Amino acid sequence: MSVPSLLPGRGQGEDIEEDASPLLPSATAAESLSLSPRPSPPSHRGSEQSSHRLLAYSDALISIVATVMILPVSHTKIRADQELEESLQQLLTTKIAVYIMTFLIVTVAWASHIRLFQVIERIDDVLALLNLACMMLITFLPYTFSLMASFPNDTLGILSFCVCAIIIGLIQAVIVIYGFHRPYLLNAHIYASEDQISYKYQILKMILQAPALFVLAGILSFIYCPVAYAVLAFIIFLPYVTQCTQWCRNKIKGPKELQRVPFYTFHPNEPLSKERVEAFSDGVFAIVATLIILDICEDNVPDSKEVAEKFNGKLIEALSEYGPEFLAYFGSFVTVGLLWFVHHSLFLYITKSTRLMGLLNTISLAFVGGLPLAFRLTHEFAANSRNELEAIQISCVIIFLASLFQFAIWAAALYNEKETLHHHIRYGGKEHAFMFAKLSLYPSVAFVTFCLTYVLSKFSTEIFHLMQIIVPFAFVLLRIIVQIVLAILAWLFSRLKPRTSVLTEEEESAISVSEVAS
Amino acid sequence: MSVPSLLPGRGQGEDIEEDASPLLPSATAAESLSLSPRPSPPSHRGSEQSSHRLLAYSDALISIVATVMILPVSHTKIRADQELEESLQQLLTTKIAVYIMTFLIVTVAWASHIRLFQVIERIDDVLALLNLACMMLITFLPYTFSLMASFPNDTLGILSFCVCAIIIGLIQAVIVIYGFHRPYLLNAHIYASEDQISYKYQILKMILQAPALFVLAGILSFIYCPVAYAVLAFIIFLPYVTQCTQWCRNKIKGPKELQRVPFYTFHPNEPLSKERVEAFSDGVFAIVATLIILDICEDNVPDSKEVAEKFNGKLIEALSEYGPEFLAYFGSFVTVGLLWFVHHSLFLYITKSTRLMGLLNTISLAFVGGLPLAFRLTHEFAANSRNELEAIQISCVIIFLASLFQFAIWAAALYNEKETLHHHIRYGGKEHAFMFAKLSLYPSVAFVTFCLTYVLSKFSTEIFHLMQIIVPFAFVLLRIIVQIVLAILAWLFSRLKPRTSVLTEEEESAISVSEVAS
Repeated sequence: MSVPSLLPGRGQGEDIEEDASPLLPSATAAESLSLSPRPSPPSHRGSEQSSHRLLAYSDALISIVATVMILPVSHTKIRADQELEESLQQLLTTKIAVYIMTFLIVTVAWASHIRLFQVIERIDDVLALLNLACMMLITFLPYTFSLMASFPNDTLGILSFCVCAIIIGLIQAVIVIYGFHRPYLLNAHIYASEDQISYKYQILKMILQAPALFVLAGILSFIYCPVAYAVLAFIIFLPYVTQCTQWCRNKIKGPKELQRVPFYTFHPNEPLSKERVEAFSDGVFAIVATLIILDICEDNVPDSKEVAEKFNGKLIEALSEYGPEFLAYFGSFVTVGLLWFVHHSLFLYITKSTRLMGLLNTISLAFVGGLPLAFRLTHEFAANSRNELEAIQISCVIIFLASLFQFAIWAAALYNEKETLHHHIRYGGKEHAFMFAKLSLYPSVAFVTFCLTYVLSKFSTEIFHLMQIIVPFAFVLLRIIVQIVLAILAWLFSRLKPRTSVLTEEEESAISVSEVAS
Repeated sequence: MSVPSLLPGRGQGEDIEEDASPLLPSATAAESLSLSPRPSPPSHRGSEQSSHRLLAYSDALISIVATVMILPVSHTKIRADQELEESLQQLLTTKIAVYIMTFLIVTVAWASHIRLFQVIERIDDVLALLNLACMMLITFLPYTFSLMASFPNDTLGILSFCVCAIIIGLIQAVIVIYGFHRPYLLNAHIYASEDQISYKYQILKMILQAPALFVLAGILSFIYCPVAYAVLAFIIFLPYVTQCTQWCRNKIKGPKELQRVPFYTFHPNEPLSKERVEAFSDGVFAIVATLIILDICEDNVPDSKEVAEKFNGKLIEALSEYGPEFLAYFGSFVTVGLLWFVHHSLFLYITKSTRLMGLLNTISLAFVGGLPLAFRLTHEFAANSRNELEAIQISCVIIFLASLFQFAIWAAALYNEKETLHHHIRYGGKEHAFMFAKLSLYPSVAFVTFCLTYVLSKFSTEIFHLMQIIVPFAFVLLRIIVQIVLAILAWLFSRLKPRTSVLTEEEESAISVSEVAS
């Protein structure tokens, strides 16, 4: 897919920066780049603004809302001696389904928000307020969704969801109309384009498609609920359906001419603001890490009366009862932190993120959001019950899938590496091997641990958390090991065929490539 | 205070950007600016990274940890018919004290983190892992703090707090040593400076000051707890004490020569990364907005059995019982959103943030963090009790103080406007008047509402929440009103003295200045 070239007129406004703090060159330079408008009538100068911070705030809000729905799941009361009986399992399953569906729906809303603000690149006060209204409704979606999950056969749940979604769609349409009314707020490519108006109607059509379908779902909900749910599912998977039919049509009839707006194509290769994918991921990782400490703070501060009566006022003895929970806390924090670290390392070398990578990232993050549940499960169960092993297995599965989908992001990026990857990290080169090692560490550790729970009968949550804490040292070791392996390979090859030592690095990458493919 | 000039060698690495998506010019340009290293040995190219995302993640984590401690406060069970009796008030007071102290201490840790990464501008894998370790301990601080609050006379609480703080200090020292060991990671100013080593020892001395004092506090805690607390308080206010003594000395002996490192001066005018202040504030606003929806989702989904029995299976009737709570939700969300909006508008025009502005911002955010409590109070109390009015009054006080300190940030910026404010917003000019109007809207609305609770006996939470929802329209009106007022003034002046219509804008600003001063 061809992407339009960067227009001139960007990054000119150094005049704004004259008295900015010189201590923060990258920050203020970045700020000035996005603050600096393209030449526009001076009367607008004051009221138009960079959208950077508005988007960062929206990302933070949406990521937290998407993740926080794990709390009702992990706060489901489980007594230590209670086997995972059927009714409880069913309750947990419902709540987990709510969490996953909320996560998916909120991220769909987020993706449409990204597209919208790829079209509208600059904001003013009115757009900021409209966006806040949109955010308010997006944060309200989880509630309507819990209603749907609790009363699947009642019209009200699905109706309230549809009403929210319709209003969100309408607000987005208003934002687009407002943006085209004041073209200096638009994306540079569209601003400079000759047929702005055709762009406008094309984009409006794409945006209003979803609300129209939601109206249909709302009407159907009065007639027969299951049909309404089917329509809802259809709306969520609409982009993929569209894409499939288009792909098939292209295969049969030969490629059609490319769509003119580079957004709203629903092509898996469509660019998705990398900055926003990062901001959203950061939000999820941060809230997950915090939910863990919140659990500790709320539950593990002993009651002063209890300490006085039960432990003769000795706080240390009371706290030593919580010992395993602190271990669980540090273990879980390390896992979240390192998954973030791997994600960070990966996205450092991604130059452009696509819709497909965004989707894989979302799935990975949905599993990361399940980590507070894993934490809760592994520290709530008393030792030596069958539940303890089950809890560890669930944790391993969550960690395995979260890290596996991170790996998949890399695989998707490698598939189109010239467009999406920094040249340091492409096939060949030491960094490629490091990245492969980093990304495969967590899936393999989780897999091995999962297998160990079946082999070792003495495996306990303590060992599991200790393993979690040890992993970061593995990261440091990894770099050393990869370097040693590369050195040995280089030495071997230089002995076999002098002057072709460069090949060794390509060899190394070839190995990892074959493993990516498998 | 003079600030060193921006060094050359920044913003050169356009080569990295060659295949970045051109659809996101500002994002990728910013990325490339911070990704692009100054000329460094090519062997380091792969492993050194921009610190931008690491810092964004740290900011998100710290802001959420700081704010989330409001949850234990707002989750304190209050029955609707229960008067705010003494024991409950005492419990609330303790918990609020824990919240405020946690917020302060975490933000002190955050400020030292900002300083650290103003010295170290680029990171590699080792620094990323060290930083994560540091984050883990910072997120653990609230726990040690709750322990201190619950058992003020036990050595263990204060000891665990000191141990955490000491380890954080030591990790920071290791980061500095590591950074100076690989100077290409350093701040451009220090990197180019001739006496790197003297910088190193100066910075290390400043960083290790706090851990040394914490060791002292730890030892003292074994002897006599109150003294240890005094030492802790001393450490927190150390920067201000240092600053005062320095200021006095300068007044008496005349100004000493300026310190060479522009960070770690504890001068109120010391720059504090504006980008990070914004990121931290965004985190706080986002988590506050989400805590509100979380409350709704956890408490206000009716039980399906209850609906079947009590309301004959009619969901609407069950939900209409929650009507006031939805009103409370939307009202609170609007308030949080608009406080963010005002903050966003203000920081858009701030070109450099200082320590003093950072402090005022922190205090403002601490009150913003209290909004979930206000939400809880206003929707938990049944109508027509004395408590209801009290709850509204508490909410008004929280909103008033949060917005007042935002106003104070502006006042602090105006005090030194040439350095800190964008020229559009300085004295004179329409934008100045708009900003004044925006910033004074919330304090005045909160104040008027507070007074109304004493005058109107019929004032209820419903009216309060409706007022909250109406405020955004006031923002849109505001712009119109200010424009009309300015037009009238301009017309009046043009009639009185032709050709001096520019003065009217200065008049307008003079009014606001006098009010800022008062």
